[in-house]
Amino acid sequence: MFDETADLFIENRTFEEMAVGETACLSHTVTQRDIDLFATVTGDLNPTHVDPAYAATDMFHRIIIQGMWGTGLISAALGTKLPGPGTIYLGQDLRFAHPASIGDTITATVREKNLPRVMRSLTASAATKWVRP
Amino acid sequence: MFDETADLFIENRTFEEMAVGETACLSHTVTQRDIDLFATVTGDLNPTHVDPAYAATDMFHRIIIQGMWGTGLISAALGTKLPGPGTIYLGQDLRFAHPASIGDTITATVREKNLPRVMRSLTASAATKWVRP
Repeated sequence: MFDETADLFIENRTFEEMAVGETACLSHTVTQRDIDLFATVTGDLNPTHVDPAYAATDMFHRIIIQGMWGTGLISAALGTKLPGPGTIYLGQDLRFAHPASIGDTITATVREKNLPRVMRSLTASAATKWVRP
Repeated sequence: MFDETADLFIENRTFEEMAVGETACLSHTVTQRDIDLFATVTGDLNPTHVDPAYAATDMFHRIIIQGMWGTGLISAALGTKLPGPGTIYLGQDLRFAHPASIGDTITATVREKNLPRVMRSLTASAATKWVRP
């Protein structure tokens, strides 16, 4: 299981408990297994991700993890940290700015932007950031 | 492996070969295994996705698959069908309009919108559509 930042229990935060500007993070260091599993579950067998011989010839010179894997990390931060369990994800605008590969540590950060109590929905900004080993 | 629409070989289409309006699709019928694997690879253990007892009490009355799984299907359509192998995904604007659950068939469709030969990058529209069994 994906356990680097796992808690024994996960608990949601209600709208009343959250404050504008509040943040939560989830980090993971990319492994070959992550790339293989993501290819298996989505069918994304692009050789950019799964064929080291091909990837050595392309613009990044190495295999990179599927960008949508990083967005799964954002989803996980929303669904397990802030607001946490029970969160329904409604939308996301994504730009894949940097390639990430095995050994890179990716951190998904979600930040509460406003708290429309009437609509009971949340607008958060989310980003992933990577650190190369 | 994810094999419902798999080809024995995948081949990319060059900018010269593609036409504006061209489309490609990738379909998959959601299984419990997809939800479990996606939770494993992303850490998205939101009970909305993995706890049937909780999910029975929420707005959808059943577990739903992670929305980002569907976006992985879009990534797979781009990376294996159109333009195909070697595609680098740069961005996506997402709206999760309908919940999808076990037994629902999801189709990711990508459509060529324009062909800026100078920039050598592609703007496509992409959508997922679901059919309930």
